[in-house]
Amino acid sequence: MRQSLAAVLSSPRWERFIVAIIVLNSLVLGLETDPGIMASFGPILIGLDTLVLGIFVIEIALRLFAFGPRFFRDPWSIFDLTIVVIALIPASGPFQILRALRILRALRLISVIPSLRRVVGGLIAALPGMSSIIVLMAMLFYVAAIMATNLFGATFPDWFGSLGASLYTLFQVMTLESWSMGIVRPVMEAHPAAWLFFIPFILLSTYAVLNLFIGVIVSAMQGESEAEASTERQALQSENAQILAEIRAVRAELAALRQER
Amino acid sequence: MRQSLAAVLSSPRWERFIVAIIVLNSLVLGLETDPGIMASFGPILIGLDTLVLGIFVIEIALRLFAFGPRFFRDPWSIFDLTIVVIALIPASGPFQILRALRILRALRLISVIPSLRRVVGGLIAALPGMSSIIVLMAMLFYVAAIMATNLFGATFPDWFGSLGASLYTLFQVMTLESWSMGIVRPVMEAHPAAWLFFIPFILLSTYAVLNLFIGVIVSAMQGESEAEASTERQALQSENAQILAEIRAVRAELAALRQER
Amino acid sequence: MRQSLAAVLSSPRWERFIVAIIVLNSLVLGLETDPGIMASFGPILIGLDTLVLGIFVIEIALRLFAFGPRFFRDPWSIFDLTIVVIALIPASGPFQILRALRILRALRLISVIPSLRRVVGGLIAALPGMSSIIVLMAMLFYVAAIMATNLFGATFPDWFGSLGASLYTLFQVMTLESWSMGIVRPVMEAHPAAWLFFIPFILLSTYAVLNLFIGVIVSAMQGESEAEASTERQALQSENAQILAEIRAVRAELAALRQER
Amino acid sequence: MRQSLAAVLSSPRWERFIVAIIVLNSLVLGLETDPGIMASFGPILIGLDTLVLGIFVIEIALRLFAFGPRFFRDPWSIFDLTIVVIALIPASGPFQILRALRILRALRLISVIPSLRRVVGGLIAALPGMSSIIVLMAMLFYVAAIMATNLFGATFPDWFGSLGASLYTLFQVMTLESWSMGIVRPVMEAHPAAWLFFIPFILLSTYAVLNLFIGVIVSAMQGESEAEASTERQALQSENAQILAEIRAVRAELAALRQER
Repeated sequence: MRQSLAAVLSSPRWERFIVAIIVLNSLVLGLETDPGIMASFGPILIGLDTLVLGIFVIEIALRLFAFGPRFFRDPWSIFDLTIVVIALIPASGPFQILRALRILRALRLISVIPSLRRVVGGLIAALPGMSSIIVLMAMLFYVAAIMATNLFGATFPDWFGSLGASLYTLFQVMTLESWSMGIVRPVMEAHPAAWLFFIPFILLSTYAVLNLFIGVIVSAMQGESEAEASTERQALQSENAQILAEIRAVRAELAALRQER
Repeated sequence: MRQSLAAVLSSPRWERFIVAIIVLNSLVLGLETDPGIMASFGPILIGLDTLVLGIFVIEIALRLFAFGPRFFRDPWSIFDLTIVVIALIPASGPFQILRALRILRALRLISVIPSLRRVVGGLIAALPGMSSIIVLMAMLFYVAAIMATNLFGATFPDWFGSLGASLYTLFQVMTLESWSMGIVRPVMEAHPAAWLFFIPFILLSTYAVLNLFIGVIVSAMQGESEAEASTERQALQSENAQILAEIRAVRAELAALRQER
Repeated sequence: MRQSLAAVLSSPRWERFIVAIIVLNSLVLGLETDPGIMASFGPILIGLDTLVLGIFVIEIALRLFAFGPRFFRDPWSIFDLTIVVIALIPASGPFQILRALRILRALRLISVIPSLRRVVGGLIAALPGMSSIIVLMAMLFYVAAIMATNLFGATFPDWFGSLGASLYTLFQVMTLESWSMGIVRPVMEAHPAAWLFFIPFILLSTYAVLNLFIGVIVSAMQGESEAEASTERQALQSENAQILAEIRAVRAELAALRQER
Repeated sequence: MRQSLAAVLSSPRWERFIVAIIVLNSLVLGLETDPGIMASFGPILIGLDTLVLGIFVIEIALRLFAFGPRFFRDPWSIFDLTIVVIALIPASGPFQILRALRILRALRLISVIPSLRRVVGGLIAALPGMSSIIVLMAMLFYVAAIMATNLFGATFPDWFGSLGASLYTLFQVMTLESWSMGIVRPVMEAHPAAWLFFIPFILLSTYAVLNLFIGVIVSAMQGESEAEASTERQALQSENAQILAEIRAVRAELAALRQER
């Protein structure tokens, strides 16, 4: 019985049903942001929301029963479980913010639709190759944030008053948003040499980001060109094998000729 | 008679005539934006505009007659027809805005000049390969917009008051325009933890856009390198074929030698 | 005598002399921007400037004499001549602005140093491959500028009052500088649907710029990989030629064997 | 004794010890930015800081003794020495700023961890290939800064008053930060033709930066594809060598056949 349940839960029909439920739920949560619609249809929307949550809970329970411990071996199942558990925590008091997280259920689309799952898997798989540069960037930010807090913290507490404030401001500077008119020109009025800190920071962080990008591009290209090269490799190998077989036939013929005499 | 008309409408001379008309029309529409010129030459310009529109209507009618149902099989023909139809709707009352769309006629240059048609075709052809990432980005924007509306809608109605306002503001944040000084710093004064929402959003959306870019680059490169590899493939194949023919000749010679005895 | 003069003018020693003169001139023009230095050493700097200009005039005259009509066949010579002629126009009255163009002489470094000349040549050579996209972008800007002038010109004359103002503002929007907080949000207060114009414009122009970049990247890569592939091609060809020669030797041997009998 | 000391200093265990010390020191320097923590634990943190500095001095002294003149041949050793020497200069009076440089010790992680050292080495190795473009960009900035100082220095002394101010402002313009709303629109109110200077500057500097990026991408790809091509080259070479050996065996057999008769 477990197996036939597992087969149903993996069938394309069930998948389409769950996709429809997720899309419906996402639309309902979208409509709930409109006060006018909430005034007229609020109870219906909230009812639909509860219904969908019920279906999700039942679905997860069925999958837990059908797949048993195998359920926990698939990271996407744990992803689904987490999202449903978040939805079950009563969103009141300190957990008020969790109401806003209900829409994360829409992300279950990724775990349900195989092609999206593959793309997201690819995006995540590209990260480890960038780990060295990410570590370097983290170091650059940490070092620069401590320097900025020491140098400018006293005069510009809003921007560089604490390590966290400095990290945020440096992230803003790295994205180049208002870095000069908003941050560095005012800072230079108090510390005329501040550009000696900020311009190298911009150059270094931009160069690091550029190298992050290049890492992703190169690994994407490599995958492509390796696949291509291996097809070509096979074609060549089969041609060379044919030539070799032909030569060996000649050699055998020659040996036969010698024998015959 | 239809065929000879179709031949005329496909001739390079006719193409050059239509290009000249489109360029003339574009210049006239450019001059019409200048109130000084309109005051002196207004009636002439408007007359020219009507004349050009007449030529376009006649041209489309001729093509409809000459090509018959084949006309509707070419997407560029439908593009031309749409632009002319828009120009014929009387631009008054609720359709006032259509006057501004008259300049879209300049885009007919794309459908007339083959090299531009090819480039635009290429730009459009690159899109389907990016569909998965575009779907993911749409999901990211939808989910983030609902969260932002729930979290910040009450305190910042101008930016996050409705789903549409949130989508627009998040698009602005993704382009990094004034994201910090303009949006996130003010929001953080009311919600100190808002950076926990915005910085992940910036990182995710930028990473997704980067992967869109990479998709386009890789597919462009792939096209190039495939073309190149296939030329090389052919050269190798002909060399290997020559070697094989030579070996087979040796084998035949050997067989003849055995026969002769 | 012409030939020996041409030899001197093409010698590395002369090249180094001209490089030194250009660098000296650039430094002098840099010092002239400082009012304090001008007050103390003004006459010396102006004298040096005149001296350097004299040397340039003499050098160009010598090259004109030594190379004759060949001088005009090299685009870099015409570049040098233009820069010296600009420097000779009396910078007063309507030509006051030309004083600021004197520093263009520093660009003669490019025409004198071969490696810089090669890089600039490469940058220029990449442009024709992008001509289709540049034409498309020009069309996009022209069409969008006329639409923006018609739609927003009356309410926002500073930004969209004339075709030129619209072109400038759209260029700013394309670079994403203050596009939303600075331009589109104010415009949307008068025309709530303005985002229907600006967001597609941003997406289209960004996509076009992306494709410009990709064109440059792909052509750069192509050059690299072609060079590489041709080396490999040669190695393979020589190996295949060796194999073929060996087989032909076998065949000849076989023919000799048949003959001998 | 020197050799065994050198062996200890190069052992993974010592490496891990130094990494732990650097991380500890970085955390201490991070905590020192918080006034609250400094009020409670200030003496402990400063004591730890002095202790770590002592360990660093001893470590450098040991390495100097163990490796002798070889110490100065490794650029990373000189990097470590410089950072420790900076830390020893008393940070008071004119050297107050050096206190902020203490956190540079965190960068010693790069010289200690081999994988980071390799990545940074790669980032530095990519620079020489970009030297021509960097020289061109330096020229572009120098020429543009002198022109901007001459043209706009009198009316906008804050932005273009001196060569340094112009260079900074042009760097800001190149990063596209507030270039239009912040700088060029105000300048155009005094000099309506200023866009003739700034838009070409933006196009040229952006195109140069793009070519810098492309240089890095192409050299990264080249490294990848060369490694790949050489593996393929070897596979092909061994196949071709096998074919050749086989043909030579045939030829030898044939020669034997002729001999036998």
